[in-house]
Amino acid sequence: ISQKDGNALRELLHEYHFADIAELLEELNSDEATYLVKLLETDITSEALMELDDDVREKILDRLSPKEIANELEEMDTDDAADIIAELDDHIQKEVIQKIKDQEHAADIVELLTYDEDTAGALMAKELVQVKETWTVAGCVREMRRQAENVTRVHSIYVTDKEGKLKGRLSLKDLLTASEKTKISEIYIPKVDYVTVHTENEDVARIMQKYDLEAIPVVDENGILVGRITIDDILDFIKDEAEKDYQMAAGISQDVEADDSLWKLTKARLPWLMIGMLGGLGAASIISGFDSIFLSHPNLLLFVPLIQATAGNVGVQSSAIVVQGLANDTIKGHIIRRLLKESVLALINGICIAIVVLVISHFIFGTTYSESISICIALISVIIMAALIGTFVPILLDRNGIDPAVATGPFITTSNDVFGILTYFLIAKLILGF
Amino acid sequence: ISQKDGNALRELLHEYHFADIAELLEELNSDEATYLVKLLETDITSEALMELDDDVREKILDRLSPKEIANELEEMDTDDAADIIAELDDHIQKEVIQKIKDQEHAADIVELLTYDEDTAGALMAKELVQVKETWTVAGCVREMRRQAENVTRVHSIYVTDKEGKLKGRLSLKDLLTASEKTKISEIYIPKVDYVTVHTENEDVARIMQKYDLEAIPVVDENGILVGRITIDDILDFIKDEAEKDYQMAAGISQDVEADDSLWKLTKARLPWLMIGMLGGLGAASIISGFDSIFLSHPNLLLFVPLIQATAGNVGVQSSAIVVQGLANDTIKGHIIRRLLKESVLALINGICIAIVVLVISHFIFGTTYSESISICIALISVIIMAALIGTFVPILLDRNGIDPAVATGPFITTSNDVFGILTYFLIAKLILGF
Repeated sequence: ISQKDGNALRELLHEYHFADIAELLEELNSDEATYLVKLLETDITSEALMELDDDVREKILDRLSPKEIANELEEMDTDDAADIIAELDDHIQKEVIQKIKDQEHAADIVELLTYDEDTAGALMAKELVQVKETWTVAGCVREMRRQAENVTRVHSIYVTDKEGKLKGRLSLKDLLTASEKTKISEIYIPKVDYVTVHTENEDVARIMQKYDLEAIPVVDENGILVGRITIDDILDFIKDEAEKDYQMAAGISQDVEADDSLWKLTKARLPWLMIGMLGGLGAASIISGFDSIFLSHPNLLLFVPLIQATAGNVGVQSSAIVVQGLANDTIKGHIIRRLLKESVLALINGICIAIVVLVISHFIFGTTYSESISICIALISVIIMAALIGTFVPILLDRNGIDPAVATGPFITTSNDVFGILTYFLIAKLILGF
Repeated sequence: ISQKDGNALRELLHEYHFADIAELLEELNSDEATYLVKLLETDITSEALMELDDDVREKILDRLSPKEIANELEEMDTDDAADIIAELDDHIQKEVIQKIKDQEHAADIVELLTYDEDTAGALMAKELVQVKETWTVAGCVREMRRQAENVTRVHSIYVTDKEGKLKGRLSLKDLLTASEKTKISEIYIPKVDYVTVHTENEDVARIMQKYDLEAIPVVDENGILVGRITIDDILDFIKDEAEKDYQMAAGISQDVEADDSLWKLTKARLPWLMIGMLGGLGAASIISGFDSIFLSHPNLLLFVPLIQATAGNVGVQSSAIVVQGLANDTIKGHIIRRLLKESVLALINGICIAIVVLVISHFIFGTTYSESISICIALISVIIMAALIGTFVPILLDRNGIDPAVATGPFITTSNDVFGILTYFLIAKLILGF
């Protein structure tokens, strides 16, 4: 395809959806992709650019002049344009913004760049349909037609007073059914959910989901309507968060993908393996501390992997449930009650597993009765302990303002490994008295 | 509050949002909640019921008569109503459907119940705004006003031919700006994404996200427009899937919450612990198979937890990345290349960890040089093996149509534990020759 036959390519790709163009761009090498972006019209490529993976987009933007980037941004919604500009180097940022022809668009983008990341201000778009309460239905429809030019999709029509303060919203239905001369103030709905520019993304997501909203207006400190957030941005945010939590639980510390470079993947994975390694060395020193066991009860060493695996599994289960509960705000009641419940649950699971281990260890591995009983009591204790650590640590982190998701995965597993093995040998020593 | 003062309550709660009412219902006991549902108007309670946790809703519905349930369903969108009915017992289902006054609404609900779960047919709602291509703009606006009565939110206006076949969509903007006598066929957009009733939810979610859609029309085998799916339903689906994957990775097999009963939590957690137990017993028999090590190289036993922890952590990391890559469709290229990349990555990580372990084991734990070298070579081999298993198993499952997410968590950890310990002892035996 890339024999630089511009016209044929343009014709061929004209009918493609921007999301398909984006897929195509990801397949090509950077030079080919840049060639294509320059070739095609900006209304298609600007949307396609937004869909690209960060790395790919960065490479293409590096190859475009500030003027070319500005042309792409011109076609984008303000929120998308601000996201792209934020990815550029500082000195290029300024150049690009100067090259944007539409002054108002440029000012909106600059405004969005001033808000903190992770807040509604940075997530919102300036594009929205806004009517004043003093207008009539006919004037409103006329004005809406004009505003709709810039707004890709009309989600809601927001009603403000003369100063721009958010007063309520207008349903399309009421607008369609009202007579032309009715005043907006008579038909608008004064109850409207909103967030401020400083509301955190997480809270925006929670509110929009709770009330099943598809768009929410954003106001500044004075209640002036300054933007709106749509559900597709929130959907992206929720997906990203879920992926980060999933990776965190698996011991991967950055948002990496299978196709990332070896260096990036190593940086994301090695630190967690090091934590696991420290735990393993800790366990080694515990075992060597109980070295008399090698002579008196060598059979007990056979069950170290069993103790360790069970402690790790129970800890991860408990922490995963608590982490999800915290994220969904379903953890209620006192912490003591929750720990009690986890203990009972651990006791049930522990007894079931212990019975099986009791029988198998004695009859197959030939441990003595007292050894088997030590193993089982230790196993139950370890399960209860692992469940308590798995429940307590995330709650503790959450109360101290740390994302509890870091507590799942290698962190919990490693500490449970170490404590589990220590508990195992302590209980065995207590019962068997070696 | 619950002193049965109906009027005061009604007045108090009148201004509340249904999502807040739902939260209140969850706090109350079942009898109080049922009392409240009966007391309040069905347009509020029907929405609140939809927001409730399955368990709570079930208890309330159990206490309502078929007639009362039918009244609630009358107010719901067809997709929500069908979801609720599907939760009821078979004989109550029929009674409830008979009691629904609006015949068309009842027929729509029955139709939705016929589709397979997890397909677009079961997810879609029948409520939509549909216009025929032969109409004029004026007629269209008139008809839309009528249809909009039943549709909570107008996402898109779909255009069909006389037989009801989906032809395209109409933008609100074009409708607002066109003259009254224009035919719809002149202004509609013939390019429209759609799914069929048999499309799986996963594919619907993928398509809607890829093309940033907020609603998608659903057609039957003959291309007749039968319903539409909105982004909020997809958002719920995506969140549920992410939570299920997260729990699966943590070794929890059902969709449980922290507040579920002990019995439900045990059912979801014990089976996975049993798998871990079997792995632990497998490891025990491997160690006992190499029992000469107890006499010749007891120091090697100290590092069993280290080997096991590292194998588990590496396996979970590798599988998590592959599982996410498969879910996002970013796993491209040949499987051999991916396994090669994972091996190189594992080699890098392995060497870093091995160097630390080499020094510490020799100088702190007093292992001989040959022992330390055996441990390190085994460690590197185990890391590579764990990475390969973690990468290969999810891809294999996915190719055989099994959800690769089951492969993460205890399953991968357990098999890596067993293989890791086996590899460790085999390599040690080979080098040290005991």
